[in-house]
Amino acid sequence: MKVPRTVSEYLISRLADYGVEHIFGVPGDYVLQFFQQLENSPLQVVNTCDEQGAGFAADAYARLRGLGVVCVTYCVGGLKIANATAQAFAEKSPLVVISGAPGLNERQRNPLLHHKVRDFDTQLNIFRHLTVAATDLIDVENGCCEIDRVLAAAVRHKRPVYIELPRDLTSTVCSCTRSPLPPAPTSDSGALCEALFETVKRISKARHPVLVAGIEIQRFGLQKPFMQLVEATGIPFATTPLSKSTLSEDHPLFLGVYEGAVGKEPTRREVEESDCLVMLGAFMTDVNLGIFTANLDQALTVSSSSEGSSIAFHQYPDVFLDDFLSGLVDQDLPQRSPSAEKSLSPQTSFAARDEAITIRRLFAYLETCIDSHLVLLADPGEAMFAATDLTIRHPAAFLAPAYYTSMGFAVPGAIGAQLARPDLRPLVLVGDGAFQMTGMEISTAARFGLSPIVVVLNNNGYGTERPMTDGGFNDIPAWRYHRLPEAIGAGQGFEVFTEQDFERAMTAAMERTDAPTIIDVHLDPDDHSPAWKRLTDALGAKVRGEE
Amino acid sequence: MKVPRTVSEYLISRLADYGVEHIFGVPGDYVLQFFQQLENSPLQVVNTCDEQGAGFAADAYARLRGLGVVCVTYCVGGLKIANATAQAFAEKSPLVVISGAPGLNERQRNPLLHHKVRDFDTQLNIFRHLTVAATDLIDVENGCCEIDRVLAAAVRHKRPVYIELPRDLTSTVCSCTRSPLPPAPTSDSGALCEALFETVKRISKARHPVLVAGIEIQRFGLQKPFMQLVEATGIPFATTPLSKSTLSEDHPLFLGVYEGAVGKEPTRREVEESDCLVMLGAFMTDVNLGIFTANLDQALTVSSSSEGSSIAFHQYPDVFLDDFLSGLVDQDLPQRSPSAEKSLSPQTSFAARDEAITIRRLFAYLETCIDSHLVLLADPGEAMFAATDLTIRHPAAFLAPAYYTSMGFAVPGAIGAQLARPDLRPLVLVGDGAFQMTGMEISTAARFGLSPIVVVLNNNGYGTERPMTDGGFNDIPAWRYHRLPEAIGAGQGFEVFTEQDFERAMTAAMERTDAPTIIDVHLDPDDHSPAWKRLTDALGAKVRGEE
Repeated sequence: MKVPRTVSEYLISRLADYGVEHIFGVPGDYVLQFFQQLENSPLQVVNTCDEQGAGFAADAYARLRGLGVVCVTYCVGGLKIANATAQAFAEKSPLVVISGAPGLNERQRNPLLHHKVRDFDTQLNIFRHLTVAATDLIDVENGCCEIDRVLAAAVRHKRPVYIELPRDLTSTVCSCTRSPLPPAPTSDSGALCEALFETVKRISKARHPVLVAGIEIQRFGLQKPFMQLVEATGIPFATTPLSKSTLSEDHPLFLGVYEGAVGKEPTRREVEESDCLVMLGAFMTDVNLGIFTANLDQALTVSSSSEGSSIAFHQYPDVFLDDFLSGLVDQDLPQRSPSAEKSLSPQTSFAARDEAITIRRLFAYLETCIDSHLVLLADPGEAMFAATDLTIRHPAAFLAPAYYTSMGFAVPGAIGAQLARPDLRPLVLVGDGAFQMTGMEISTAARFGLSPIVVVLNNNGYGTERPMTDGGFNDIPAWRYHRLPEAIGAGQGFEVFTEQDFERAMTAAMERTDAPTIIDVHLDPDDHSPAWKRLTDALGAKVRGEE
Repeated sequence: MKVPRTVSEYLISRLADYGVEHIFGVPGDYVLQFFQQLENSPLQVVNTCDEQGAGFAADAYARLRGLGVVCVTYCVGGLKIANATAQAFAEKSPLVVISGAPGLNERQRNPLLHHKVRDFDTQLNIFRHLTVAATDLIDVENGCCEIDRVLAAAVRHKRPVYIELPRDLTSTVCSCTRSPLPPAPTSDSGALCEALFETVKRISKARHPVLVAGIEIQRFGLQKPFMQLVEATGIPFATTPLSKSTLSEDHPLFLGVYEGAVGKEPTRREVEESDCLVMLGAFMTDVNLGIFTANLDQALTVSSSSEGSSIAFHQYPDVFLDDFLSGLVDQDLPQRSPSAEKSLSPQTSFAARDEAITIRRLFAYLETCIDSHLVLLADPGEAMFAATDLTIRHPAAFLAPAYYTSMGFAVPGAIGAQLARPDLRPLVLVGDGAFQMTGMEISTAARFGLSPIVVVLNNNGYGTERPMTDGGFNDIPAWRYHRLPEAIGAGQGFEVFTEQDFERAMTAAMERTDAPTIIDVHLDPDDHSPAWKRLTDALGAKVRGEE
């Protein structure tokens, strides 16, 4: 890449340094010149139907590539992705938001330029709530250093950052040189030593220790030391919904995805009955841990993350996950003999019947066809709850907003996922309600030669909400999802009522690798997955217990 | 309506007091109980495909009814409508945002409940930037007074407000009683007297005074005194793009929509050559005033709004529009004889030819069919610029985000408009780029028995941007818009290439009053409206002048 001459060219070159190859967004006049510079750079611009789609696509890209970028215009673009940015913040996804803005030379006497809401810095102030670093590059002299600082924060904290680019900076010469970044914080050595000593004692004494791999194991690329720890000690491990597929799910020591009473019973028992639970990089969130149904004994828990560590009821604020984990690997922990064989072996065959398809049978079929060429994306709702039960044998091949649970992520997310990992084909599981939010981005996928297989779990509305409180507000328009390819002029569609319909549709989808497929699966509105039933049973018991 | 028992029932009863009959939104678990209470109330819930659509629909409803309400769930819903709320703020639309939130009883020890971004008040803090009043109802004792305060602010300032409803307040008894609202600020009588005296002197001395009716004339319902002033003095008047259709455009003294060099030349000349310009309730914004092409002499200008007044270069911060306008009406101003006949008489006939349709001819046809049964909604871009030239004879029958210019407003806006004014049928003018953002909300319109006529100006991408800076980022997927009715299972679609195609499609649309119509009009990407050409000519001259 040529040597950057302007502030905006410097930004582009730094993004390329971080391995970014695609930028998602929608152009607008305050950011048009920058889009042109992007188009003339090695980065590819992927413009989506709506900014929301670009935000979700960039988030998915960030999860798989370590950095994702969304580029939009001032306010009318930026404020449309407040929610996608919030999701990236909540779930630790390193998303870079770049927004155009009025040129510094246009702001004299505070005119009411179009798109301005209240003050010139209204959007910046909003994004300060949603990011770990934000800059408006007003201090041009310092522009390049600011860009360095903000991008480094995204990578270090695995959370979104915000860069506002006044449009005249596309022609402003960048003057400052790259500054050395402040060193990453390291653990206090005394505290680390003590925490490791304590943990080793607890693990050695324990009869049933269990490791939990949280999402930070994936975000910080710590899968290798984690598996070294597993292999060296023979301690079984679980994941959480958010970190599902961080590690291969066919490892003999894998216990399953732990999500309280919402998860499978053997996994719940192993985790909750452990006398030494070591949680590494996990967030203690409600959906992630089964919506209040988790039953973990803090006295028996060791927890470490990038933000600090704790053992039982005392805290080590200056002991961080990477040091703690590599420290544990270096300890001389006893090697345990593997316990009884796990009954988690995946189903490998499915005989499709000429009967109405159910959620349970649909997922039984999916279980047989997930292979190393697929990345699964699940939208919140029945799709996500049921998908959590699937066996994913390939690391990082499952993406879902399992904590923030924003609907509409999966279809645009598939665009980001396939561009980030062209070796993987996205299989999207999405409810009809979520599809109506962002599903038309499937036309963007088609335009860029992508081939997601979108399975719409069509149960006529917000099926997850009906058992909680039902009303007309849970009904939605009855789209004919399989007819959308005709309307968008791309891809193929199938309507599915029976198991055999579904098998035929999936077979055709697998064969058609140059375009998207939409499969409209008609489900009984009263049909729910085992995971969803476990959730409602558990919540029902909880509610009764409270009354 | 029954006497409200809980805080949330009190909120519903107050909304009904303000004349609200419909609430737009998408349910989610933090707001489900409130949706059920709404369904059991006289208010109708209108759930849209995505929250963004609900935000725009409620904004349009607010513009026509004086108050509009959007109701969403915590963060994953609320943050999706940050942009629609910003638009309402920028364009003075009294929008009430109601968001569900975790119950007060769920927040102990700051757990990571789902949808939470950073802190419990992250969303509240974001909406403080976008509203004139916001409350989280944490202080339950004061809940009803808070609701009164916030709703009153929306009505007084004609700007959005935010109410966060912890979900347990749907069962919390409302304890406080309705409090007297603080009186609205009134003008300082001395200052008002002086400002009126000065203005009367200026108008009386002037040879060509001109009145400009800004958007606040509509928002505050001041059309009657404004027209009294016009009739009593014989002074001609203009509007702005944002206030277009505030007053009937076939009045003999109407000069047209003033938007600098972007507007029609006779209007520009009359306004800019006036020796006494009285601007009432107008914002001096860039798009609203022709993107920097306005050429107004401040020394000859009197301006009054709800936020203060000014004459030439001195200010009267305590003189407000309503007092100033009614004061002017009471003065003994000279009656002028009407000047020469205006050449603004609208076209009334159109002979459709078997030729490729152009923007100019399309709008010439529309000019002949706009009648008192239609409300026009125009999305930013060519649609909005060209529509500004249409003659709207019926007050408040034109809606467009003429200042904030957020794309995607018009289709969901049509839902709000038709529910607010069931006597009017929406005619939506929208570019293909904007349609792809929110156009699928046409299925929501169908579900609720509405009948918008959606004319998609299909020029294969972001046509407004191409003359500024072109690139692949201005291309979008080529949808077959007229095939969408088959995919959404409702309405009818037409594909238009020629003038006769368009006439046939519009005739069929007018006849089909029970469902939406989509008309896909294929236009040459190089075809632009006269308004757009005036804009680019003016901007071109300006750019060249700056170089």
